[in-house]
Amino acid sequence: MFYAAAVMPHGDEVLSPQDPDTMSLSSAMKKIGASLENVHEYVIVTPHNIRIWDHIGVILTEYAEGKWEFGDVEIAGKYRCDKDLAVQIYQEAKNRNIPVVGINYGALEGPLSKIQLDWGTLIPLHFLPRRDIVLITPARGIPRETLVEFGRVIGEIISKGENRVALIISADHAHAHLPDGPYGYAPEAKEYDHMVMDILKKGSLDRLFSIPPELIEKAKPDSYWQLLMLYGALLGRRYSVENCRYARPTYFGMGTAFIKLK
Amino acid sequence: MFYAAAVMPHGDEVLSPQDPDTMSLSSAMKKIGASLENVHEYVIVTPHNIRIWDHIGVILTEYAEGKWEFGDVEIAGKYRCDKDLAVQIYQEAKNRNIPVVGINYGALEGPLSKIQLDWGTLIPLHFLPRRDIVLITPARGIPRETLVEFGRVIGEIISKGENRVALIISADHAHAHLPDGPYGYAPEAKEYDHMVMDILKKGSLDRLFSIPPELIEKAKPDSYWQLLMLYGALLGRRYSVENCRYARPTYFGMGTAFIKLK
Repeated sequence: MFYAAAVMPHGDEVLSPQDPDTMSLSSAMKKIGASLENVHEYVIVTPHNIRIWDHIGVILTEYAEGKWEFGDVEIAGKYRCDKDLAVQIYQEAKNRNIPVVGINYGALEGPLSKIQLDWGTLIPLHFLPRRDIVLITPARGIPRETLVEFGRVIGEIISKGENRVALIISADHAHAHLPDGPYGYAPEAKEYDHMVMDILKKGSLDRLFSIPPELIEKAKPDSYWQLLMLYGALLGRRYSVENCRYARPTYFGMGTAFIKLK
Repeated sequence: MFYAAAVMPHGDEVLSPQDPDTMSLSSAMKKIGASLENVHEYVIVTPHNIRIWDHIGVILTEYAEGKWEFGDVEIAGKYRCDKDLAVQIYQEAKNRNIPVVGINYGALEGPLSKIQLDWGTLIPLHFLPRRDIVLITPARGIPRETLVEFGRVIGEIISKGENRVALIISADHAHAHLPDGPYGYAPEAKEYDHMVMDILKKGSLDRLFSIPPELIEKAKPDSYWQLLMLYGALLGRRYSVENCRYARPTYFGMGTAFIKLK
């Protein structure tokens, strides 16, 4: 059962928020966690695990483990992966000719079949009740429509199962907010973040297609491709959006949205 | 410059050899290390990193790091990756329509662009002088000829460059040697290992094609697909083979071969 979806940031700053906006964002993440108390598992899309330009990745390991440090905060997590669900998603995507690879690591089975977790998963999961996961990695080099179609596969597969599943979109937004940031300054960063947060708030994800590729290129977000998957997963479904928060404590934008399916 | 190639085992037992055969194997690995003192870098093929059934993987991270423990022995290694060479191999394979994916992890660039190292790389590299690496992952679900063709790409690319490169094939052989081993017993295990060691010793890698798929299936090796890449890399080249050793201290076979190009 497709229970809910959430857009969650993965910037270090949410672990130790210093300003009112980031504090509010961090507490929105906790609220999202509380709202997910009844879910059985997560499908989580992260842009910082395996990165393949032209293929979506579905992780097929039995376990996922990693740690992440930021200042005094250390997050360590070991998760079981729901390999059956992962295989279903992989197989259906493959059947639809979506460019997708099934990725194991180490051994094919058992405790050594384990992918390393990245900050893009560890940080959002830190705010959520501990559950099994399916790990998905987006791809930037494939058509927008294909990412939407893959999202549709996720939505269909998790809707069919008995488990209550939440789709977690790990995403930070534009990275070109500050002249002295690692990606420099572009006015498109503010524009992108504003548009995306408005799209999420209004639940009008079809408008993602109206964002020009050049604007995305200049804004340097870490969210667009995952959001297209979210759009696909939600196609034809009724839902409400809550807990939209935004903060930009440093050179990149972060936002939350909790999407409750009806 | 394609300087040399080596087949190296990655079973824990070589780290702390207890019987004469494994001691001899372990010392052969050290000798191979000594023979590679003049190389600038390694292309290493490992079956225990990323595992994708139907696509060869070329790791495109800037760094690779991991650790491995066996009894009292802990190996920890952090390596720089030669991303330029990796991209060349990936691109040429792609041009030839070989099913290959370029795999980054974490960030696209910088210190967070780092793949986790597996025992299939850490153990062989432990015996070799510390150099930069290019990490390749084999695929079991693609035609034999395609693995050979990919090997040919490796051989051609490293032959063109100025750096002295060694191709390291991380491989253990049949895993069905013992009835109480995790893969059970099959007489084909001994047969496979005997054939493969004979093929390596005589440098007659074309004979890999004469091994029936059913025998491979029953013997359960961890070497066949990498050896096909080795075969492709060596095609049309003159070389001598030294330092062939074999040991089977437990349920799987291990062997070395050092291949010096002329």
